[in-house]
Amino acid sequence: MSTALHTGLPGIPALHDIQAPVRDSLERVSDELRRIVFDDFPLIEQVNGHLLLMKGKLFRPTLTLLSSAVDGRPKPESASLAAVVELIHLATLVHDDSVDHSALRRGMPTINSLFSHQVAVIMGDFLYSRAVVELVRLGSLDVLSVLSRATSEMTIGELRQLSALDALGFSESDYESLIRAKTASLLSAACEIGAVAGAPRYRTALARYGERLGMAFQVADDLLDYTAEQAMTGKPSGLDLRERKVTLPLIAALRTMPDASRRKVADLFAMAEPDDESIARVIDLVAEEGGLDYARRRGEDYARDAEAALSDLPDTPAVASLRDAIMYVMERSR
Amino acid sequence: MSTALHTGLPGIPALHDIQAPVRDSLERVSDELRRIVFDDFPLIEQVNGHLLLMKGKLFRPTLTLLSSAVDGRPKPESASLAAVVELIHLATLVHDDSVDHSALRRGMPTINSLFSHQVAVIMGDFLYSRAVVELVRLGSLDVLSVLSRATSEMTIGELRQLSALDALGFSESDYESLIRAKTASLLSAACEIGAVAGAPRYRTALARYGERLGMAFQVADDLLDYTAEQAMTGKPSGLDLRERKVTLPLIAALRTMPDASRRKVADLFAMAEPDDESIARVIDLVAEEGGLDYARRRGEDYARDAEAALSDLPDTPAVASLRDAIMYVMERSR
Repeated sequence: MSTALHTGLPGIPALHDIQAPVRDSLERVSDELRRIVFDDFPLIEQVNGHLLLMKGKLFRPTLTLLSSAVDGRPKPESASLAAVVELIHLATLVHDDSVDHSALRRGMPTINSLFSHQVAVIMGDFLYSRAVVELVRLGSLDVLSVLSRATSEMTIGELRQLSALDALGFSESDYESLIRAKTASLLSAACEIGAVAGAPRYRTALARYGERLGMAFQVADDLLDYTAEQAMTGKPSGLDLRERKVTLPLIAALRTMPDASRRKVADLFAMAEPDDESIARVIDLVAEEGGLDYARRRGEDYARDAEAALSDLPDTPAVASLRDAIMYVMERSR
Repeated sequence: MSTALHTGLPGIPALHDIQAPVRDSLERVSDELRRIVFDDFPLIEQVNGHLLLMKGKLFRPTLTLLSSAVDGRPKPESASLAAVVELIHLATLVHDDSVDHSALRRGMPTINSLFSHQVAVIMGDFLYSRAVVELVRLGSLDVLSVLSRATSEMTIGELRQLSALDALGFSESDYESLIRAKTASLLSAACEIGAVAGAPRYRTALARYGERLGMAFQVADDLLDYTAEQAMTGKPSGLDLRERKVTLPLIAALRTMPDASRRKVADLFAMAEPDDESIARVIDLVAEEGGLDYARRRGEDYARDAEAALSDLPDTPAVASLRDAIMYVMERSR
């Protein structure tokens, strides 16, 4: 599979190539999404128009479609299911941005900033309720069960996040519970419902694959916050630290950190609005104590588990793509 | 049925008496509610504890239970269904209070004021997702269809409300669409799912009854805002006018209002924070132009329609209670 064109790096799969086995279905996902959220009330039309422009790379729908095609027989309703997964993800983003007062998402103004906080709360509810209406139309209680449990888990993850403001008291096991609920639950559900629709005998394996992939995905994301140089400053964003979110690199670093350094971390988390200098200092401390290396190793553990979950699956293009998706996720944090 | 003890007014049914035919099931609703929202995450336990104290009169669950018992055979799962209806109502209240920045609800601090705006948004999502999980457990796609459509309608009602800030441009038909979506949809759904569970052949009639009852309920509620004297001031609250919500008494009054008075109304709606004097003046104008009388008549029309929807139902204690519920709703605005 030629990937160099899309990533610039040989051997690293591009999302475009990963999506190849389900390209036709994937092209129907946007139309399905538009159909499911359609309403002629003008404010809804406006917000929907903006949301559909904001649409991301459709990574979660890709997982649903690939999972439904692991034994080579994609099901016609899988594009609708994939659209529902993206819709639930969108509803979550709309509420998250409102809760965090974020102004930008994927380089575009958020619903709360472009319309209002009120519109964001209600539109999130609208999108989620439409997702349920569509799932009822599709008629599978199995799928409804998987997705409603995942949604419930995600809200608990968000609450864990709100409660995770004590750097020195937040353990790796707290962090695992948090990212499992916040991120891995929906990726797992995306894969599991694909299996329910198209390859029921691989349901457990694909749910497990999605869960481990989701853990790797979130660890990679949290690492990026410590490592990715910003275009403007040439420095890592440290946004999580700015919002006093405790993630794995810091948790790991704190375990061996000398008292003087721990106090600097505690000071940062006691600030109402941490300054750039304090953030840069804690980022350096975390790197020095090996927090980044530890998080990378844990990410690789999750990635290996995801790979192992696929071991009994047949040798099809869709399964090859699910394997490539692991590399794609890991590459984001390098 | 003796009612004087509970209302102080002979002939006006008390909710307690209306609930008599389903008393046993109703007593299980609170336990069911507690079971459905249970989670051992400490913040959720705290918020749930507060929400369960805030629990209202269980009017919607009462409608579900009565509807399920119209032919005298209540179904065992109807207490769970009734709890889900209350849960969806609670989830909506939590988000509404957050959207409106309300500090009090039923005399108790709201979730947004007691915890935070963030917690309110996420907890609303949590409650709604648990409602869906429970409905999946109960296994009826019919019930899921009715409630997911009602929830979707309610969000559209909320968006209509946000858009209804132009007093002179908001018509009676706009108002009807608003209250049908915001209020009548859930009361209709509460009755319809009761029928699905216990008396399927009356499903259409009970859905219709609930819808008309909901319209009467909201008109009565909107009238109260113009008429109910507050304990502290002895004057009507005029809260809707303060929040620049256009309701039926004003819409009706504007139709015959002279230009000079219309300008006073327009002025009020142009104010960022209307003062007490401007509000009292508009309340007087609305009464003088017959807006209250008109709204009362429309409320009575809806009440008659609700009564008519019950005409083919059998002569059972539950149906008698549904009839009494109409009087109970109407009495609130007298």
